Amino acid sequence: MTESRLDRPPRPDDIAPAPTAADRTAWARADRMARPTRLARLRERLLEADVDAYFGVRSENVRYLTGFILGDGEDRVAGSSGWFLVGSNEVVLFADSRYAIQAAREAPGARIEPVYGDLEKRWPELMASLGARRVAVEADHVSHGTWEKLAAAAPDVELVPAAGWVEAQRAVKEPAETVRIAAACSVADLALAALLPEIRVGVTERELAFRLEWLMRTGGADGLAFDVACLAGPEAALPHGSPGDRAVTRGQVLLFDFGAQIDGYRSDMTRTLFVGEPSARDLAIYELVAEAQASTIDGIAAAIRTGAALPSGRAADGLARAVINAAGHGGHFGHGTGHGIGLATHELPSLGRMATDEPLPSPTVFSVEPGVYLDGEMGVRIEDLVAIDVAAGRCIRLTNFPREVVVVDG
Amino acid sequence: MTESRLDRPPRPDDIAPAPTAADRTAWARADRMARPTRLARLRERLLEADVDAYFGVRSENVRYLTGFILGDGEDRVAGSSGWFLVGSNEVVLFADSRYAIQAAREAPGARIEPVYGDLEKRWPELMASLGARRVAVEADHVSHGTWEKLAAAAPDVELVPAAGWVEAQRAVKEPAETVRIAAACSVADLALAALLPEIRVGVTERELAFRLEWLMRTGGADGLAFDVACLAGPEAALPHGSPGDRAVTRGQVLLFDFGAQIDGYRSDMTRTLFVGEPSARDLAIYELVAEAQASTIDGIAAAIRTGAALPSGRAADGLARAVINAAGHGGHFGHGTGHGIGLATHELPSLGRMATDEPLPSPTVFSVEPGVYLDGEMGVRIEDLVAIDVAAGRCIRLTNFPREVVVVDG
Repeated sequence: MTESRLDRPPRPDDIAPAPTAADRTAWARADRMARPTRLARLRERLLEADVDAYFGVRSENVRYLTGFILGDGEDRVAGSSGWFLVGSNEVVLFADSRYAIQAAREAPGARIEPVYGDLEKRWPELMASLGARRVAVEADHVSHGTWEKLAAAAPDVELVPAAGWVEAQRAVKEPAETVRIAAACSVADLALAALLPEIRVGVTERELAFRLEWLMRTGGADGLAFDVACLAGPEAALPHGSPGDRAVTRGQVLLFDFGAQIDGYRSDMTRTLFVGEPSARDLAIYELVAEAQASTIDGIAAAIRTGAALPSGRAADGLARAVINAAGHGGHFGHGTGHGIGLATHELPSLGRMATDEPLPSPTVFSVEPGVYLDGEMGVRIEDLVAIDVAAGRCIRLTNFPREVVVVDG
Repeated sequence: MTESRLDRPPRPDDIAPAPTAADRTAWARADRMARPTRLARLRERLLEADVDAYFGVRSENVRYLTGFILGDGEDRVAGSSGWFLVGSNEVVLFADSRYAIQAAREAPGARIEPVYGDLEKRWPELMASLGARRVAVEADHVSHGTWEKLAAAAPDVELVPAAGWVEAQRAVKEPAETVRIAAACSVADLALAALLPEIRVGVTERELAFRLEWLMRTGGADGLAFDVACLAGPEAALPHGSPGDRAVTRGQVLLFDFGAQIDGYRSDMTRTLFVGEPSARDLAIYELVAEAQASTIDGIAAAIRTGAALPSGRAADGLARAVINAAGHGGHFGHGTGHGIGLATHELPSLGRMATDEPLPSPTVFSVEPGVYLDGEMGVRIEDLVAIDVAAGRCIRLTNFPREVVVVDG
C-alpha cells in the first residue's frame, strides 16, 4: 500500500482548535463525578484479593483516584507527599506542610495526614485506623527500602504485592479522558503543521525541537508529554535520541516524536519528514512503515467492525511486524508496536512481543508506531494514537496530521 | 538586620553571561576524566561493605558514573534501560534496542547489555560474569517487585540494601560540577532580571511563569530544573503551589521559585517581590526571612573562616529556625532550610530538622531557603544556592540576584 503525497503541506487551520475554559470546567466535573466509581472498582478488587486496604505511591494513580496533582518530576522532591491509602471507607492522602493546603483543595474527599519521611512511624496507627490486617502495596513502585520499613513497623500487618491494579483500570478510558487525549493530539498536530514552513536546510535539530515545543505550549498545551525528539538523518536511527546542534541537510529524513499534555492527559505522535526529494530507498522504507502501521490499525478496526474478538496486544504487534518481516526488515524494528497512553505517556495496554495474550481492553487509547532503523543511515517511524470502543463500534485515529509523504524545503 | 532597598531594579547585564560551547567541551572532558575516580570511590565502598558489585537504577547515578543520559521523566518510559552494574573490573549498562546506540556513544567505558524488562532472566549469568555473590542494591530506588524477582532468580546471590552510597559521593562536588551549577544560577538570575519590567498588575501567574521559562530557555538553559512556580498573594503561602490563571493585583507579594539546567546540573532560587508598596506587616515578614537566611549563611561562613567544624545539616537548619522562632513565626515555617543540589534538584546534604548530625560535606552546594507562610494571606521565601569549600576557605552565594526588597509596578 503506497501512501500518496499531499497536494500541499498541512496548515494549522486543517486541525481542530485548542480546548476552551468551558472544556476544562467540564473535565474537572467529569473527574469529580468519576472518582467514586474509580474507588469503588478498586475496592471490588481489594475484596477479591481479600485485602483491607491499598497503599500506593504512583503519582498518576493518586491523581486518578483522589485528584491530588504532582507535576512531572515533582515526585522526586515531594518525599512521601502524594502517597495514599484506600481503605474500605476512606482515602488517606499524605502531605507534608509544603503540600497540605494543596492536598485539601485538590482532594476534598481524602483525609489528609501529615508525614515527613517517617511513614513507618505512623504505619501501625494508620493500619489500625483503617482496620487493615492485609494491605495491597504497589510493589512495582514502592521501593524495597520502604517496603522493609513498613513490614518491620507493623509485623502483624501483611503486605501483599499488587501490580497493575489501578493501571488496569486506567487502561479503560472514560469519555472525558479520551477527549482530553484527543485535545492533546490536536495541539500537537497543529504545532507540527505550523512548524512546517520553518523547516529549512541549515536549521538545527535543537532549534526545531524548541520551536515545536513553543508552538505546543502557546497552542494550548499545559506542558509537554515528554521532551521533543527532533532527529535528522542517521540520528533518526536512534528511537529515543535527543536533538543536538546538528544542522538539517538536504536529502535527510527528519523525525519528530513529540506530544502535548492537556489537563494531565498526554498525546504522542511521530512523523518522519523528508528534507528535499527522498531517495527511492528512503521512500520505500517510509512506505513500508506506513503499510505496517495501516495494517495494524486496519486489523483492529476489522475486528471491531465484524464483532470478532479484539486482538491481544501481542497479536496487534504481530500485524505490524509481519509486514516489516516480510520485507526483510524485521531486524531493524527492535521496539514494540505501541503502548497505552493517558495520565502516563506509557501505560497499559502494551502492543508488543512480550504483551499478554488477553484481548485489548475497551474503550482504550494506544499508540501504533512501527519503525525501521538503518543504523548510521536513517530511520523512519510513524506514530498515531488510536481510540477504540467496541461497544460503540469505533476505531479512530486521534492523530490527524497526514501520514502521507511530506517533503519540506523541497 | 534590615535589608536595604535597591536604588534601581536589577538588569540582565548585572549578571554573568550564559555558558559557551568551549565551556561545554571543557565540562565533557572533566566528566570523562572524573569518572574513573568516581568508580574507584564506589569500589572502595564495595570493598568496605564486602560486596562484589553494585546494582543501580537511579538515572542521576548512571549519568554520574557512566555518562549515559536519560532526560527528565524518561526513566518512566525507559524500562530497564539505564540500569547498571558496577563490578570490580567492569561496568555493565543495560539498554534495549531504543537506547543501544546512544548507550555505546555516551558510555564508551561500559559493557552494553540488551535487556527487555526481563532482567531477572539474565541475572544469574550476569552475576556469574562479574563473579558476584553479594551485590549492593539501590534499595531506596529499586522497586520491591524487582528486588523479589532478582532474589528469586539467583538465590545464591545475596542482595544487600545500599542507601545513599553514590548520593554521598555526589554530595561532594568536583570543580566542574560547581561551575555548572553556578552557570545554571546565572541563567536563572538573568531571566528574572529580564522579567522584572514585564511584571504589571493584571498579568497572570501562568503568563509570568511561562515568560520566565522562556527567558531561561533562550538564555542558555538546556531545560528547567523543575516547573516554574509563580504564586501571587495568598497562593504564595503554598510552598509547592502551581501557577494559575490568577491575575496579579496591587499590594500582593509575588513569589517565584525556579531553576535552570545546564548540562544536567541544576539551579534553584526563590524571590518574593512586592507588587506596589508593601504593607508594614509584609515588609516585616520579608525582613525576618532575609535575616533568617543571612544568619544561616553567615553562621556557615564563620565556621569556615575560623576553621571551626562545619555545622551539621540539622544545626544549619537551626540557625534559620532560631531567627524565625524568636519572632514568633516558628509555626509558619514548616519545611526544611535547604537541600543539596547537582544532577538532582534535591540531593544530599539536607539542611533540616531531621538531617543527620554529621558535619556538612565539603566541597558542596546547597540551597538556603527559609520561609514564612501565613495561610490564606501571603508567604515569603528567599532562596539562594551556596557553595562551600573548607579547604579553599570559601563560602559564596552562587545566586547573584539581589536579595533586597524589590517593588515592581510601583
